Amino acid sequence: MTRPLILDPDRLFPADPGTRAIARALYADIAALPIVSPHGHTDPTWFAYDAPWDNATDLLLAPDHYLYRMLFSQGIPLDALGVPDRNGPPATDPRAAWKLFAANQHLFRGTPSRIWLDHVLSVVFGLDVALDADSADTIFDAIGEKLATPAFRPRALFDRFNIELLATTEGAHEDLDHHAAIRASGWNRRVVTTYRPDAVIDPEHQDFATAMARFAALTGEDVYDWRGYLAAHRKRRADFRAAGATATDHGHPTAATANLSAGESERLFRQIVTGNWSPADAELFRAQMLTELAAMSVEDGMVMQIHPGSCRNHNEALHASHGRDKGADIPTRTDYVHALKPLLDKFGNEPRLSIILFTLDESSYARELAPLAGHYPCLKLGPSWWFHDSPEGMRRFREMTTETAGFYNTVGFNDDTRAFLSIPARHDVARRIDCGFLARLVAEHRLADWEAAELAHQLTYGLVKKAYKLDDPAFSPAALAA
Amino acid sequence: MTRPLILDPDRLFPADPGTRAIARALYADIAALPIVSPHGHTDPTWFAYDAPWDNATDLLLAPDHYLYRMLFSQGIPLDALGVPDRNGPPATDPRAAWKLFAANQHLFRGTPSRIWLDHVLSVVFGLDVALDADSADTIFDAIGEKLATPAFRPRALFDRFNIELLATTEGAHEDLDHHAAIRASGWNRRVVTTYRPDAVIDPEHQDFATAMARFAALTGEDVYDWRGYLAAHRKRRADFRAAGATATDHGHPTAATANLSAGESERLFRQIVTGNWSPADAELFRAQMLTELAAMSVEDGMVMQIHPGSCRNHNEALHASHGRDKGADIPTRTDYVHALKPLLDKFGNEPRLSIILFTLDESSYARELAPLAGHYPCLKLGPSWWFHDSPEGMRRFREMTTETAGFYNTVGFNDDTRAFLSIPARHDVARRIDCGFLARLVAEHRLADWEAAELAHQLTYGLVKKAYKLDDPAFSPAALAA
Amino acid sequence: MTRPLILDPDRLFPADPGTRAIARALYADIAALPIVSPHGHTDPTWFAYDAPWDNATDLLLAPDHYLYRMLFSQGIPLDALGVPDRNGPPATDPRAAWKLFAANQHLFRGTPSRIWLDHVLSVVFGLDVALDADSADTIFDAIGEKLATPAFRPRALFDRFNIELLATTEGAHEDLDHHAAIRASGWNRRVVTTYRPDAVIDPEHQDFATAMARFAALTGEDVYDWRGYLAAHRKRRADFRAAGATATDHGHPTAATANLSAGESERLFRQIVTGNWSPADAELFRAQMLTELAAMSVEDGMVMQIHPGSCRNHNEALHASHGRDKGADIPTRTDYVHALKPLLDKFGNEPRLSIILFTLDESSYARELAPLAGHYPCLKLGPSWWFHDSPEGMRRFREMTTETAGFYNTVGFNDDTRAFLSIPARHDVARRIDCGFLARLVAEHRLADWEAAELAHQLTYGLVKKAYKLDDPAFSPAALAA
Repeated sequence: MTRPLILDPDRLFPADPGTRAIARALYADIAALPIVSPHGHTDPTWFAYDAPWDNATDLLLAPDHYLYRMLFSQGIPLDALGVPDRNGPPATDPRAAWKLFAANQHLFRGTPSRIWLDHVLSVVFGLDVALDADSADTIFDAIGEKLATPAFRPRALFDRFNIELLATTEGAHEDLDHHAAIRASGWNRRVVTTYRPDAVIDPEHQDFATAMARFAALTGEDVYDWRGYLAAHRKRRADFRAAGATATDHGHPTAATANLSAGESERLFRQIVTGNWSPADAELFRAQMLTELAAMSVEDGMVMQIHPGSCRNHNEALHASHGRDKGADIPTRTDYVHALKPLLDKFGNEPRLSIILFTLDESSYARELAPLAGHYPCLKLGPSWWFHDSPEGMRRFREMTTETAGFYNTVGFNDDTRAFLSIPARHDVARRIDCGFLARLVAEHRLADWEAAELAHQLTYGLVKKAYKLDDPAFSPAALAA
Repeated sequence: MTRPLILDPDRLFPADPGTRAIARALYADIAALPIVSPHGHTDPTWFAYDAPWDNATDLLLAPDHYLYRMLFSQGIPLDALGVPDRNGPPATDPRAAWKLFAANQHLFRGTPSRIWLDHVLSVVFGLDVALDADSADTIFDAIGEKLATPAFRPRALFDRFNIELLATTEGAHEDLDHHAAIRASGWNRRVVTTYRPDAVIDPEHQDFATAMARFAALTGEDVYDWRGYLAAHRKRRADFRAAGATATDHGHPTAATANLSAGESERLFRQIVTGNWSPADAELFRAQMLTELAAMSVEDGMVMQIHPGSCRNHNEALHASHGRDKGADIPTRTDYVHALKPLLDKFGNEPRLSIILFTLDESSYARELAPLAGHYPCLKLGPSWWFHDSPEGMRRFREMTTETAGFYNTVGFNDDTRAFLSIPARHDVARRIDCGFLARLVAEHRLADWEAAELAHQLTYGLVKKAYKLDDPAFSPAALAA
Repeated sequence: MTRPLILDPDRLFPADPGTRAIARALYADIAALPIVSPHGHTDPTWFAYDAPWDNATDLLLAPDHYLYRMLFSQGIPLDALGVPDRNGPPATDPRAAWKLFAANQHLFRGTPSRIWLDHVLSVVFGLDVALDADSADTIFDAIGEKLATPAFRPRALFDRFNIELLATTEGAHEDLDHHAAIRASGWNRRVVTTYRPDAVIDPEHQDFATAMARFAALTGEDVYDWRGYLAAHRKRRADFRAAGATATDHGHPTAATANLSAGESERLFRQIVTGNWSPADAELFRAQMLTELAAMSVEDGMVMQIHPGSCRNHNEALHASHGRDKGADIPTRTDYVHALKPLLDKFGNEPRLSIILFTLDESSYARELAPLAGHYPCLKLGPSWWFHDSPEGMRRFREMTTETAGFYNTVGFNDDTRAFLSIPARHDVARRIDCGFLARLVAEHRLADWEAAELAHQLTYGLVKKAYKLDDPAFSPAALAA
């Protein structure tokens, strides 16, 4: 039996009819605003070469750890879902993988993955039948047919999604050829990069050695010398700014920062590059580097994004067989107050510095992050992130941060996704939840309706452009050329 | 002045009329489902010998630390409430104790104890007057009269409560005679046991020495030798399975697990049994034993329940005078991500292993437990527990776990109670709150109504039977005999 | 364009119409009850000398770190807002500061500061125009004119606010001359003090040395000798009781308590007063002093307030330039279960002891504080505090503490403020949120309407008077004189 797939126009709004009516009116005003996506992980080759995607499994399922981790948790092997292991994609038939996924849709009830997938099927692909075991084949075919048409190429979807800006993330050790290809192609949409130097900062990163070698090759600096290493960062930051970057991105295990003297830093660096370090040295080096990078941001104006607290690759056997980013990263308790102090002691009141903080530990929202952002001029709060990029997660974020940090110390929504087709869905969820939250404040007479309307616009469009300096003349091509 | 005791049919449903109507419909469908109680602490002698209970105080008040701790917190001595101390029950008149309890009912406003007691008085005893100082005598008498009738014997209530399965908990060092008596009596209801070896695993447990001696006597093994000790566990697990057990239960101070070599384990065990250990050794031994017991579960299929994080017997003077389980256990911050890693490194992807995790630290729901259960095939989440076995506690559990772990990585409701008469009340609260949560998802168009109906059934009946392997042929009498 | 300033009579009540009607009825009953403010930081000179205030900026903005920290977080310098630095007030024109504040009102959307300020402007000053850039001048003038009239002197407002009792806070090293002046003036309202000895207990406090010198001078004791030091505390506690105090107040970095022998305490004290201590010694001394002060409370009956967990003066540069209490105190994770155990081991069951616990770490509400207060006779829970003194903060407090601790282990509302004019606003918010919470319990049939009405009265008026012993005959002038 097939069931209809219907996206209710009131979805995600509060149930109380009075509040819902307010939310609906707020949403109507901002629903069509362009998407600004300043923090994500899409593949720049899509936009550089505009090749068609193959099929539903390869596009939607096999690369999306939000989806396959849930099936894995119920005992379904990743191979059966088409997820690549360290030797590449398994020999699984994409259609069979899709059918297995379809037959287990009940596992996603109550999850944001379900909301996103429904949106992709309904809005992006125009399907009107819910995905389940019965409809799996038909839907697999329908998606495959659409993907073969020009309207479903990356660039066409970029325009259809009304994306004003899309940021990807590249490593300090990676070239920016695909971004250059985008610009060289004459396609004049704004796809920019973000500077993510983790692999050349974290000696515990499995790719540290090779990343350092490429870092050296790309910069021509002696990156095994402390001064050369810092110079290499500066060179690459300039390359990234030339490729549109306005921000850097730092995913450390903790939020630790340090404030070592130049001599201490140099001695520590020597230990790191000679392989003569303990885990505590690695932690201290990462900590010191956040402060060094903050110094560079004071110079060049790039916005820092710090998102600590994930225990990566928790499943040892899966990491051995399948590698990183396979749904086995687990959040941990994260301190900010003591961890950030060394950096803030040095740069906390610097008007040129702007740091956006993310967390996977919601207990820090009201206790640490909102008070910090509600005081320090350099700090802003990123949106509820990863596991908390969800209706309940977003509600908790607003409920626990707004009273202390206000709305204007937050930065709008980030989709943070590799799943390009889900970007409109994700932004739509955020817009609906924010409008619902604002509607409750109006219904409780804590905000006037015109203020809520202004805020809905800010949370959707205004704050993100300001926080990421997207219209900042300092990052204009002319300024960068100067 | 006496006040009527009325249980509103819409109690605990959300206030919004539209959402409430959905909740009411969902609840109507599942309200009459049998009770499956896979984790609790009732006394098996009740069902073995079916003796009548004496009076309201001895049955409802004196053994229930949920109730008397609240009165104690307001300065009322435990003796005055009939609570036994280390020398046995005090000389307090049960009627006087009941009147003191009745006169302080206001203390329970807003607590789940109030909801459960109202249900017991109204539904189980058929009373229509609220308990207070004025009605105390009448209610004491009414309960006493009823308890003297056959309809209020344990087995009659078991049937009236529509209990399909009830699990008790026995120690590894305790005999299973009462369970044998139940089966020998020809009463063919399903009362099963659960293997709880804490007292022979935790050298800091006050009964460790005597428990070990009984463990030896019951198994005929040299339990002071590492191999004999493990063999004794295996023997007793077989005994417990023969008495219906499908699960084990582990209440350690923390969730720490370890992964020592055989040699290290043996050396540590020798320290433990020779009394030559530090608190850190005790912690390491408990940690290693969770991994050893996981290995046994891989062999015999028994489901592990791990519920760490209670600081037992916090009130030193009360512990000295009254002993354990007197309402003075206080939850503590609990880590799971690092604590469970050694065990998960070894067995995390084992299809035969099933571990149900509980917590007293709600900050771990969204941060640690849901991501772990949403990834590892062997992990499931137990319901909100103990202090969080309450309407708000259950709501927070669903709000903070569902988006990441889904519903199908949870295991339905556990009443975890010694208070037999409150079992229907406790399950009813869970059913109502779950239906209310599902109703909100339907009202917000995050779930179709037919999906919510399916889920209401799963959360009430389906998931618990699967998670605890209650219909698993491997645990059938025939299989066990083989 | 000016906008009207309207306080909706239903503000802060739940949006659901049925629940709102219940809340409205509960609130109507208690809205006019007198204000009892047992914990705050107003300036006693106001009531001693009844001098008029100068202008809106000096009264409302420059001393209120809730307000200026938010502006500072957006890059506005404190000088421009009239905030004094270590050299005194800046040369900023108060009107210019006010206009800058007015032009940035959008920053306060969704914050309690906004609610309080609207209330002050509307109810206290009778203004009907919202504060913004356009209305700033007019409002500054209107406030200035009113402040020059007798009706806006401190004592007149005290009466108009219907304050039954107001507690200030003085240090152990401070004289009580202003309180004496209040009594000597014949103005017979109840303004009392609170004993706050942090500066003579915490060797890490910047004023420790000078505070100890004044402590010696005020008591005539040898405060550098352990016995003299304790005697000085006893003397000053008696002075404070004579000035109306019924409570002490302790704002330590953590909740640590200790239980040293007399000899250990004396040795530690000698280290402290000879400057021969480490941070760990300082922590241990503060910990031991909480236990010593508990012993004194057992003697003299004074209620202890413990509110740990703030990392003071986090912004080093701002502390250097502007000093303490400038909006740069940031909460930290706080343990209670292990921290309080030494004190509770000694005095936990003492009927004479009463301790009110506060927290800045909401994760401790359900996990630690409610279970502790729901067991120990000496423990009660203070209201949601500081950053959590807000609508959402209060809701979370009730949702996370009530089910385990009940209502009767809480102590009503504390405004904890230096901002005298905001006191009615703050109490009004608490009353509305409590009525809204109770209304939800009634709407969900978890509480009868008459019980909710009784509770609304208790939460507003009854519990605070009992918890702070405000009507306790032991603290009557006659008893103190005896």
